[in-house]
Amino acid sequence: MIDLRPIAAILGVLLAILGTTMMIPAMVDIVAGKGDFLVYVAAAVITAFVGFSLWLAGRNSAVERLDLRQAFVLTTASWVLLSAFAAIPFMWSETDLPFVDAYFEAMSGLTTTGATVVSHLDTRPPGILIWRAFLHWYGGIGIIVMAMALLPMLQIGGMQLFRAESSDKSEKVLPRAAQMAKSIVGTYVLLSLACAVTYIVCGMSVFDAVAHAMATISTGGFSTHDASIGYFHSPAIEYAAIFFMLAGSLPFVLYVRVLAGDFSRMVANTEVRLFLGLVAFFTVITTFEQVRGGIAVGETALRQGLFNVVSIMSTTGFVATDYTHWGPPTEALYFILLFLGACTGSTAGGMKTFRIAILGSALAQHLKRIIYPNGVFPVRYGGQPIGDDVVASVLSFAFLYLSSFMLIAIAINALGFDLITAFSASITALANVGPGLGTVVGPAQNFAGLPDHVIWLLSFGMLMGRLELFTVLVLFLPSFWRR
Amino acid sequence: MIDLRPIAAILGVLLAILGTTMMIPAMVDIVAGKGDFLVYVAAAVITAFVGFSLWLAGRNSAVERLDLRQAFVLTTASWVLLSAFAAIPFMWSETDLPFVDAYFEAMSGLTTTGATVVSHLDTRPPGILIWRAFLHWYGGIGIIVMAMALLPMLQIGGMQLFRAESSDKSEKVLPRAAQMAKSIVGTYVLLSLACAVTYIVCGMSVFDAVAHAMATISTGGFSTHDASIGYFHSPAIEYAAIFFMLAGSLPFVLYVRVLAGDFSRMVANTEVRLFLGLVAFFTVITTFEQVRGGIAVGETALRQGLFNVVSIMSTTGFVATDYTHWGPPTEALYFILLFLGACTGSTAGGMKTFRIAILGSALAQHLKRIIYPNGVFPVRYGGQPIGDDVVASVLSFAFLYLSSFMLIAIAINALGFDLITAFSASITALANVGPGLGTVVGPAQNFAGLPDHVIWLLSFGMLMGRLELFTVLVLFLPSFWRR
Repeated sequence: MIDLRPIAAILGVLLAILGTTMMIPAMVDIVAGKGDFLVYVAAAVITAFVGFSLWLAGRNSAVERLDLRQAFVLTTASWVLLSAFAAIPFMWSETDLPFVDAYFEAMSGLTTTGATVVSHLDTRPPGILIWRAFLHWYGGIGIIVMAMALLPMLQIGGMQLFRAESSDKSEKVLPRAAQMAKSIVGTYVLLSLACAVTYIVCGMSVFDAVAHAMATISTGGFSTHDASIGYFHSPAIEYAAIFFMLAGSLPFVLYVRVLAGDFSRMVANTEVRLFLGLVAFFTVITTFEQVRGGIAVGETALRQGLFNVVSIMSTTGFVATDYTHWGPPTEALYFILLFLGACTGSTAGGMKTFRIAILGSALAQHLKRIIYPNGVFPVRYGGQPIGDDVVASVLSFAFLYLSSFMLIAIAINALGFDLITAFSASITALANVGPGLGTVVGPAQNFAGLPDHVIWLLSFGMLMGRLELFTVLVLFLPSFWRR
Repeated sequence: MIDLRPIAAILGVLLAILGTTMMIPAMVDIVAGKGDFLVYVAAAVITAFVGFSLWLAGRNSAVERLDLRQAFVLTTASWVLLSAFAAIPFMWSETDLPFVDAYFEAMSGLTTTGATVVSHLDTRPPGILIWRAFLHWYGGIGIIVMAMALLPMLQIGGMQLFRAESSDKSEKVLPRAAQMAKSIVGTYVLLSLACAVTYIVCGMSVFDAVAHAMATISTGGFSTHDASIGYFHSPAIEYAAIFFMLAGSLPFVLYVRVLAGDFSRMVANTEVRLFLGLVAFFTVITTFEQVRGGIAVGETALRQGLFNVVSIMSTTGFVATDYTHWGPPTEALYFILLFLGACTGSTAGGMKTFRIAILGSALAQHLKRIIYPNGVFPVRYGGQPIGDDVVASVLSFAFLYLSSFMLIAIAINALGFDLITAFSASITALANVGPGLGTVVGPAQNFAGLPDHVIWLLSFGMLMGRLELFTVLVLFLPSFWRR
């Protein structure tokens, strides 16, 4: 049996933090004179009370000796449980959502997906808007700490490749996570502040700037307006969003060096170079497509192309222009970009650039091995040969990713939806992007039109995608629970 | 440089055989009193002449010492070149197709896909109908010999697993292929005869029976009627088709034992058991779905379910009832079944049952390894542990298969088609099935409505799928052509 007490203790602390932060939307609604503030106070009390109880139940356990299996349970349980409590304001406040929708909205927030079932954002009380933005921000820092502290140790999808990048190789999960968190949180706060100030300078209100900054750095995508970034009709704001969405897509561990004045590691990083190269490549294509299709020219075409490529590849999902009107090649491009994602150890989702690079090399080496069966062709990443176990991990991950995408899409299709809705909803959830395609879940609509079982399926998809699939799936293995 | 002379010699012989067999449709049209017979005679003379010239050019080379790289060139060149000559009758006869469509039809025949651009089959001269059927039959035996003689040696997609099943481990490609072909052709002819006789007994005309028998055993799917097997409105014929489509989906090497009276190897074979188990499982689901949807009950529901499951999993693509009217879950099922395919060393396409089994085991073991990083969890197939190289091969194959599916679909979508047409046309070509889904390429339509560049793309997809992807792709590697 797994000792659940240390898990309860940590979950308790995380819940207590979540409960405390519910006072932020409460204060916002008090300042705005909205009655909803009481909802947040009540939710905060409940959440903090449950958190405190869990902490009490587990406080005398060996929290600092958390083992691998406990770390797995903790990770999935964090997102599942925190989403449940984060959902309370969506049920009780003026949005008045049923639990299934409220849970979806909270999960979408904490996984930094940004898919929403809430419409008429422009007329909602400010409290609920800041709560959505805050969930992104909380989820974003959570995923960075998890990716850097846990995944490399868990050898998930080739993440063991990044173990060497951190100096501490101890097997103790918690001290490692705590140490990570400390150095990263500072960077995260600084970037968010810089983003908010830039937005204000570009003309946003302080409220919009803070909310959008939290949704930008976390590559989440929730907006305070139905028209998303398009609401502002401001090229300056679009460029600012592009810059900070890119900032959220880079490995946060490298920012520690950048802040110390050393840009060399960031510039030399294989994944960063590849990611930025792909962004440039696809921006040229989309810009060209707009010019060819007579949609836009010059700076407008470049800006719209860059914005959409960055918004999708960073898995943010902000919308400035409805690119689905650019014709079929854009639909096609959407699917390619969604699968790529951005850098490991960032707040972005998707398959991640380093896996795409390893898959490309693995296929090339496999082809060579077929021609010369006795030759030795190591798979390389950033010029260095990498181990067979990493390659097998990445291949397993890629296969599982594509299979999960297909299975979720087929399930949604089987539940009565057209294939474009099914395929795009599946991948937008799994890659933690936000908007899908088509008349049901496209950028101009939201997910409110879907029935409960599809909403649950997509909530599960967001969880799976955010926690890199295997982290969730191991819990379904009977042998996981045996000793 | 690669010595192309032995390749020319073998291609010459294959072309000469193809040319000679063009006399079959010629004779059929003479008997039917159709003027088209002259087309076949002319095409036969040209094909045989080119074949003879190629043989002359390469006859003094070391044909029996064909090496690996030559075997690769030969395999892809066979399908590419034979399709070009097999296309001649479609251009010059009463069907009067442009080259791009004629080539597609010939490639669809020789890859045993069964996707067609020819409509109004019921009123066509018998010569062209028997030519289509014969292309299936020729392609079917070709693919079995290739799969058994070449692929295991080439270590493609885990096929090295089947190397032990044959006694001859020599590296000489041709003697091995010739020995294989001899024992298999007999079985292939016998099964085809049995199928034709059964069709006649069930009420088909001799002409229809022969044409459909060739399209059944090869799991091709070309029919002599626009309504396919549905034309006959005969449960007996449908059951006969089910039986022989299944026969074409099993490993042909095992039939040699069966013909000697020993059924044990066939019954004990892991892949056969898994494949038949999957067929039974999905038949139960489709039957239940029909009953639930009020489409059919009892024997009718069971027969229609079984027919469609077998038709798609065997990658034949015969149509008895338009299952696309059974509602969304059937569309979803279509995608699952298409990816599975049937057994290795049969005439069927798809990813193949053994790969599905290995992928399942590999994922399960990968999950266990994540939980117990120091444990040893060998991937198993049929109870036996299999090597890491086989697992890596299968994973690479699966990833490349899913990527190819996505890329071809995205390309078709980018060329202006809806996603259901794009996704279903892509997988039906890659898996060598035949009909797609939707209003453009669904079972009630054909591929004639597609523009030239999509037709070329699908011809390439059929070739890729039939030759197990890597066989074609290695030719695009620059290092393949260097020494």
